[in-house]
This record gives sequence, C-alpha cells and structure tokens, in this order.
Amino acid sequence: MSDYRVYFNGELVERDQARLDMEDRACQFGDGVYEVIALWGGVPFKLEEHMQRLEMSGRALDIELPPADWFIEEAYSYLEELGCLADGDGEDFKLYVQASRGIADRSHAYPDEIEPEIIMKVSSFQPNPQEYYDEGVSAITYPDERWARCYAKSLQLLPNAMAKKASEKAGAYEAILVRDGFAMEGSLSNIFIVEKGRLITPPASNYILNGITRRTVIELAGRENIPLFQESIPLERLFSADEVFLSGTTTEIMPIVEIDDEIIGPGRPGELTLHMQKLYWGESRSS
Amino acid sequence: MSDYRVYFNGELVERDQARLDMEDRACQFGDGVYEVIALWGGVPFKLEEHMQRLEMSGRALDIELPPADWFIEEAYSYLEELGCLADGDGEDFKLYVQASRGIADRSHAYPDEIEPEIIMKVSSFQPNPQEYYDEGVSAITYPDERWARCYAKSLQLLPNAMAKKASEKAGAYEAILVRDGFAMEGSLSNIFIVEKGRLITPPASNYILNGITRRTVIELAGRENIPLFQESIPLERLFSADEVFLSGTTTEIMPIVEIDDEIIGPGRPGELTLHMQKLYWGESRSS
Repeated sequence: MSDYRVYFNGELVERDQARLDMEDRACQFGDGVYEVIALWGGVPFKLEEHMQRLEMSGRALDIELPPADWFIEEAYSYLEELGCLADGDGEDFKLYVQASRGIADRSHAYPDEIEPEIIMKVSSFQPNPQEYYDEGVSAITYPDERWARCYAKSLQLLPNAMAKKASEKAGAYEAILVRDGFAMEGSLSNIFIVEKGRLITPPASNYILNGITRRTVIELAGRENIPLFQESIPLERLFSADEVFLSGTTTEIMPIVEIDDEIIGPGRPGELTLHMQKLYWGESRSS
Repeated sequence: MSDYRVYFNGELVERDQARLDMEDRACQFGDGVYEVIALWGGVPFKLEEHMQRLEMSGRALDIELPPADWFIEEAYSYLEELGCLADGDGEDFKLYVQASRGIADRSHAYPDEIEPEIIMKVSSFQPNPQEYYDEGVSAITYPDERWARCYAKSLQLLPNAMAKKASEKAGAYEAILVRDGFAMEGSLSNIFIVEKGRLITPPASNYILNGITRRTVIELAGRENIPLFQESIPLERLFSADEVFLSGTTTEIMPIVEIDDEIIGPGRPGELTLHMQKLYWGESRSS
C-alpha cells in the first residue's frame, strides 16, 4: 500500500488510519459514488469533468453531496499538500475519490438527514506497458450482470470486478460486457469499433457509464472531422469490425486485437485507433 | 447505535472501534456477503441454514470463506460472550454477519490470495408492531433494478435500498420488485400470493434471493398439506390475488392488503395468510 496520507472528511490521516465505520453505508450497501482521476506528470486531467460527474452520480442516487466546485478545491488542496502537483514534468498519479451516503444504523431505507463520508487517496500510477498500446491486447466477452443504473458511477462494482477477474484468468486485458446480445462496454472502460473509417460507440444509456475518456474521444473526433456514430453494437458487428479499442482513465486508448480467441481485423492496432491514441495523448499529456 | 461489542475477525471490539480498512473490498466494490439472523427470546432461529447460505453466497461469488460450521461456532461463542443467548425467555436480538472478500490495493480484479474480513454485530431487535401482522400493510411496486446474481446474498444492495426508501416515501411498508412484468420479491422479503386456497411463490432463480423464511413457509405448507406452487407471478396475478403476503427474517409473515393504492382481496389479511403466520410463529418462537 502506498504511503500517501488519505483525505478523510477534510482531515489528512495516515494510510492505516483511513478506516470507515462498519455502518458507513458504503461498507454494507455499496451505497456511494466515486471517481478516479489521472494526474499526468502531476497535472490532473479533466478534474472538473470528473467532479461534475461525481455530483451527477450523487443526484442519480439521491445522495446529497457538496457541489463539484467544492470537490475540485478540496482535491487541489489535498494534492498540493502532498506535493503531487507539477507542471507536467512531475510523476504520474491517480486520485481515488469516494463519497458514501454516510453512516447510519443498518436499515435498507436511508435516513433523510445523513452526511456523506468523503475520502480521497492519491497513489503513484504506473501506466500500462507501452507495448500494449503499440501492439494491442486481447479481451473476452462476459455477461453484463450489472444493475440498471450503470450511468451513475456507484460502488455497485462486484459484477465489474468478477468480469475483470474472469478476463485476467483468461489471460486477457479486459472483459467486454454483453447485454441481450449487444456489446455495452468494458468492465472499467468504454468501447469503440471502427467500420470503414467510421467510429462507432454505444449511445450513453442507463446501461452505460458515460466515461470522461469516451467523451474526450467523441470531442476529438468532432474536432478532427472523423465520422462518429453512437449506435448499439450487436456482437456480430463487434467481431467483424475493422478495429476495436477501449477508452478509460487508466485504460487510455487501448487497441483490442483479439476477442474470445478470434482475431479482430488484421490482428494489430488499426490506423484510426492509433490516430485516436495519438490525439488523446496530445490532449491528456499536454494539459 | 447499540452498545454491544462487535466481533471483528475473531476479536471483540467496542462498537466505535469496528472500522473497516478503506480498501476492504466491501467498502469500494460492495464485494462481500452477509446474513441477518433473528434471536427470538435469545434463541437463534435457523442459524445453521443462514450460515450454510452464507457459505453458498461466498461460493457463488468466488469468495473463499470458512465453512458454515465455523461461522456457527463463532456466532455462538460471540453471542454467549455478550449474554444474548437464552432459552426462549430472553430478549429478541438480531445478528448481522458480514464477510467481505478482504483487503487489497484497489483494483477491480481481486488477488487470488486474500483473507476475508469477518464482522458480526448483535443488536436489540424490536419486531414490527403487532397491528401490522393483524391488519396488514401496504406495498408499492418498484422496478427491479438489481444485478443478475440476486441468489447470492451480497452487499450489492443499493437497488434494494432505493426501492425500500421509495416505499417509505410512499408511506408503504415494502417495495415489490418488478422485472419484465413479473413480481419477483420485496426489497428485503420474498412474496407469496394465495389463489383459491393455493400458495404461489416465484421459483428460486438467479433473480430471487431464496429466503430462509421462504423455505420455512414452503416446508410448513408441505407438512400441513397446503397446496403450494412455485410459479412466476405476472403483475396482473399479483393484483387479482385473494391474498398477498411477504416473508423474511425481520418481516416474518406480513400480510399485504394494498398495493399501489389498489386493495388486495377484501382489504384485510386472508385466512391462509393468518394460518401461515400462526404456523410460522409456532416454529420460530418455540425453537
């Protein structure tokens, strides 16, 4: 475990003191929301967007949270205090932010008056090996067993964890979640396919976590006049795609060249995937 | 909060010392299983069945737990130490048992080598008011938003919590979860309907938590030659039923006489419901 002190409801505490009350609803109901933010070279990437989504996730689940601006300020002063901020020439970090509904005697129905418990933990971040990005990785498909509010970034993560573990056991990088015959997203990433020079990604529904990296890819495609369509992706289109890639804060733009032992396209990262990767790095590493 | 000490990985700790590491996977992924056991007059009811289900829930989620027998012994010595056991003439308690997958640096895929974190907390238990059982209560219907492994009693409880809260806001006792037009179960109870003297309850599928009280009702019906069928219950059958009741450890046998402002049957608890209630109490309170 990292040695960085943890932000705990406004205080900085030693890592081993960062302990949640057993009746924090995060611990008994998975009743909370979270974000993971990358600091590339010490610069938080899209911090505002992450904190705005945190606020939205709270609203979606009737969890009353301070506004995004408050989280942004707290995060900055926490990161500054720990010396993690730099001008792009520092270390890479990731920041985990969790806000639970709060502490209450155990009962399914939560009290109306309850204060969120807020923790932040920064840790050193080792990006994926460069060869993953250059040569691509494999994925498996896995049943999407998640609940119906995937659009909120909540602690209901056991289905994601089990899918990700299944991919690890299979020697693959990610699990692509399949609901009713459609590829929805990865266990912790969004999915894009390329068909004849066009980017396709499933529309942001209640069954999709609308990733900040996903939105960045859409923005970049718009800026570069790359045709992009938000369409549901039946499995047969996934396997017949010219290119497949995943997007995510720690995933970045990850080429998928094999799914369930079937080769995708020519079996190496496609042109458009590598182009989006380059655009994304230009954006995230230079901010 | 109750003053009873908490069982924490084999130790007894003061309630305010019962704190989970922030990277206990229960706190970040809802990655754990649990049970709630009633002690009627100081006698644990169906403790063995609960602990066997705990073991099964662990297996269903690839969480390696000690066997049921170990949990039973630990629970007995904890309850004994705290003076909660009696011969039926003691107080009523409830025992909460939670086993998380364990503590690990945050990562979706869990490590292969990981030790469960086990807590037990006993608290005084105030059963529902007698008039609820005598006169019946109301329920609402609510979308079943849960994940696909409802058969394991896991900490993926936010959908249950939100449903239960919605029922509270509506002034109702419970929320009946509806998936694809079928009444599945309550947010923390199972459902039975009565049609022409026959008991009907949905079959135990992956979308149902096979309650210990549910099983007890099925057992009692068998013993008493009351016809019982395990059939899916479309909403129209729910509303046109002669009687409806819920079953659960703290719910016991609860007559439902109104759903979404529609009166069920004659608007008071039916004959078979009251009969099952009596049989159940005979079983639970005398063991």
